[in-house]
Amino acid sequence: MTGRVEGVSLGEIVARLGGRLVGDATLRVTQVATLEQAASDQIAFFANTKYRKQLQSTRAGAVILAPASAQGCARPHIICDNPYAYYARVVRLLNPPAAAPAGIHPSAVVLSELPATVHVGAQAFVDEDVQIGEDASIGAGCVLAKGVRIGAGSLLYPRVTVYAACCIGRNAILHSGAVVGADGFGMAREDDGSWTKIPQIGRVVIGNDVEIGANTTIDRGALGDTVIEDGVKIDNQVQIAHNVHIGAHTAMAGCVGVAGSTRIGRRCTFGGGAGILGHLNIADDVNVSAFTLVTKSIAQPGTYTGAMPLEPHRDWMRNAARLRHLEAMSDRIRELEARLAQLEGRN
Amino acid sequence: MTGRVEGVSLGEIVARLGGRLVGDATLRVTQVATLEQAASDQIAFFANTKYRKQLQSTRAGAVILAPASAQGCARPHIICDNPYAYYARVVRLLNPPAAAPAGIHPSAVVLSELPATVHVGAQAFVDEDVQIGEDASIGAGCVLAKGVRIGAGSLLYPRVTVYAACCIGRNAILHSGAVVGADGFGMAREDDGSWTKIPQIGRVVIGNDVEIGANTTIDRGALGDTVIEDGVKIDNQVQIAHNVHIGAHTAMAGCVGVAGSTRIGRRCTFGGGAGILGHLNIADDVNVSAFTLVTKSIAQPGTYTGAMPLEPHRDWMRNAARLRHLEAMSDRIRELEARLAQLEGRN
Amino acid sequence: MTGRVEGVSLGEIVARLGGRLVGDATLRVTQVATLEQAASDQIAFFANTKYRKQLQSTRAGAVILAPASAQGCARPHIICDNPYAYYARVVRLLNPPAAAPAGIHPSAVVLSELPATVHVGAQAFVDEDVQIGEDASIGAGCVLAKGVRIGAGSLLYPRVTVYAACCIGRNAILHSGAVVGADGFGMAREDDGSWTKIPQIGRVVIGNDVEIGANTTIDRGALGDTVIEDGVKIDNQVQIAHNVHIGAHTAMAGCVGVAGSTRIGRRCTFGGGAGILGHLNIADDVNVSAFTLVTKSIAQPGTYTGAMPLEPHRDWMRNAARLRHLEAMSDRIRELEARLAQLEGRN
Repeated sequence: MTGRVEGVSLGEIVARLGGRLVGDATLRVTQVATLEQAASDQIAFFANTKYRKQLQSTRAGAVILAPASAQGCARPHIICDNPYAYYARVVRLLNPPAAAPAGIHPSAVVLSELPATVHVGAQAFVDEDVQIGEDASIGAGCVLAKGVRIGAGSLLYPRVTVYAACCIGRNAILHSGAVVGADGFGMAREDDGSWTKIPQIGRVVIGNDVEIGANTTIDRGALGDTVIEDGVKIDNQVQIAHNVHIGAHTAMAGCVGVAGSTRIGRRCTFGGGAGILGHLNIADDVNVSAFTLVTKSIAQPGTYTGAMPLEPHRDWMRNAARLRHLEAMSDRIRELEARLAQLEGRN
Repeated sequence: MTGRVEGVSLGEIVARLGGRLVGDATLRVTQVATLEQAASDQIAFFANTKYRKQLQSTRAGAVILAPASAQGCARPHIICDNPYAYYARVVRLLNPPAAAPAGIHPSAVVLSELPATVHVGAQAFVDEDVQIGEDASIGAGCVLAKGVRIGAGSLLYPRVTVYAACCIGRNAILHSGAVVGADGFGMAREDDGSWTKIPQIGRVVIGNDVEIGANTTIDRGALGDTVIEDGVKIDNQVQIAHNVHIGAHTAMAGCVGVAGSTRIGRRCTFGGGAGILGHLNIADDVNVSAFTLVTKSIAQPGTYTGAMPLEPHRDWMRNAARLRHLEAMSDRIRELEARLAQLEGRN
Repeated sequence: MTGRVEGVSLGEIVARLGGRLVGDATLRVTQVATLEQAASDQIAFFANTKYRKQLQSTRAGAVILAPASAQGCARPHIICDNPYAYYARVVRLLNPPAAAPAGIHPSAVVLSELPATVHVGAQAFVDEDVQIGEDASIGAGCVLAKGVRIGAGSLLYPRVTVYAACCIGRNAILHSGAVVGADGFGMAREDDGSWTKIPQIGRVVIGNDVEIGANTTIDRGALGDTVIEDGVKIDNQVQIAHNVHIGAHTAMAGCVGVAGSTRIGRRCTFGGGAGILGHLNIADDVNVSAFTLVTKSIAQPGTYTGAMPLEPHRDWMRNAARLRHLEAMSDRIRELEARLAQLEGRN
């Protein structure tokens, strides 16, 4: 929260991150903040025209903004094409991650040979035949089963579980409680209604630069693999079923569920609580709104929505009751139209 | 399940919890039960007029009820204003929690100094600079990262994770698998569609008397903090995004999701599976029904609903198809009205 | 993924699993695969007429199929009544589970006496008075609290938590992060809007042959028990509230939520993200579609649906706005009918 006490000068920021500085290059900022709350030793950003008024009144030491917004900005400012992305980089610059110390905590149980630069936290368990890349960090209480692969620079927060044979790429971030590689929900129904489990013999294969939220679950494939491509970002409590394939740079907000064997394109976004049925194909660049259920394949990019609007409960009671009679309403309108046309003809 | 074998007398109950006893003060009860199932050494409660018949036929040793229901109750009874809340206290009296023994299990790894009254279970990990209040209990396999604060009397069940610098107040209860303080889902989109992570440098700050359910996740703030005020009760598998603020005594049932920066008032209730979009303001005393998505701020107290009613699948197929033509239906009704008015004018 | 290197002969398969073989009994298969992808040393199955073309062109060494599909199949084949269930058994035959070695890992903390055939993984914690049946396997980092019972042959993957006094039957499979027996969400509201916790003194009782998915939560009963009958299959991130009763062989896909005290029949199925309100009765053989909220008891078997269909966002904006005026639309139709009838009478 306090950032770097000594701060970073505006000159150093543009030297490292690009952009054009207007104002005093020696001015130092110690933290980022919103336009409204920033103090004179903090840097803010302006990326939403809704906040134009705040741009006028801000006391921020400096502001990050787009070329079109620069004119008339009285504070020192950095002009760049994508102020929000630039802001993300400045946050990182001012708040470098605290790297865990290399080495294996004495209370961890590690049955594989790991590079000396890897951190393994307290009470973690790393089974046989596990490979972990340089500088990776395995948090306290994590469990990596046999044959797991974790790429260099990846960060597993405490209590992540990775089942046998699953692979995670480089620079991944997995949050606590995430479970990668549990069995897909595959069962055959017997004639008496009982279920016979189908062993799930595929893996989960995750690319580079992927982030996976807390308590998210990604099931292993039934025969082939469940695949998460590079740069995919998944929030908390998302459920990915077996044999799903998620294209690069797709992002899913919290509580999304994807059923088995669905193939999702690149650069898609899914709002919180959205659901996608199984065996579907979703094109690249599709945006699905929060709470929306995708029941069929989507071939065209665009935004799709299916949430029920909320109302005061009493109104909902009345309107929802009509939902069950929509077809009948439609029939009555058609009949009215026919009768009216006949009457009009007669007159 | 068996309660206190020796039981507690009705006289002792009213002496400790208040209320007015009608009947034998020396009668002992050993457990609570429903009106229908209570035996003669058990105490039941009557709080829902739907069960009036059972009040007549119960074999319970005693009944907790409101003044209006007391007349004609043949069993010994305790009269009080809020029988359900009184019942909660009697359950606690008859079923005192089994306190874990003070002290640190030898298999735990604890890098901070803790009061002697604190319990730390097997395999737990408490990092440096952690402060825990008197009589708190940290379950087996919990992970408390650097700088965490846990208030006195709080109870963490096994396998809770609290990320660095997060604060939890007094007398909190956190259930297994809960994750407090994972990164919020903050990313800036680059021009090529990829995402740049925005480091999440805020904290989670939780008040006193808060309960958090199993596998619930509460993300840390992006810049400022995520705040859960006193007395908030959160069920299992709830997802609270970064910078959410939840007012005192609000309750959320299972599987609720709240998106980032939304501010929720006091004494609100959320039914299971409800969702709230980001950057909204929800007033005090708002009740949101199960499965309802809140898409805009709510300024007035009251109950709000937006769930789709269920039907036999065949009926749903027909009615749901019409949903996509509601605007057209509305247009056709307006046209009918115009044509009919013209015809009526002519006649 | 590679199955048994030496493979299994078709003759051995029918000797062990039944069915009628047409073709060379000495032919060996090493793995199962889809009709489309199977190689000559692999066995495929045909259970969906949609894939009839692939049945003609497959290069599979053998095919599992129903009597009606056998005619004209040029490849060696096994004829059986339920090819999908047969396939499940062949997968198991070719991919026998890797049994964890019997014995307690030195880093585990075990305070109960266990049979010598039980496996307890690294960092697991087994409290006092726990009983575990023969050949059960308790994964790394699991926590079994006081008085827990686990039946013979059950398999707990890493990091499962079972709260005190809960019982799990034989041959259960529990995936990582599952929490069995956390407190139900039971609270009484005080007059000032605050909540008083009702201690949850029931248990969770789970039958035989039950599978529970990753990060699924099943709460203990308030007074009585939460009950999961034999053969129930529950996917990931499902939430089962206190005192729910689920009948034998019912299956629930991911992210389903069931509220308190609801009683669900046998052989029901619930699609992903479905919700069931509390205190309901659901008959045997009911199928609830994905994303559907059950708001009242269901007495008749059949399929029930209540999801909102998705549309391009712009269309949804227009149609959803009409949803709030359905009752008014219905009134206008009724009025049109009355006026038109009057006009028709006049003409």
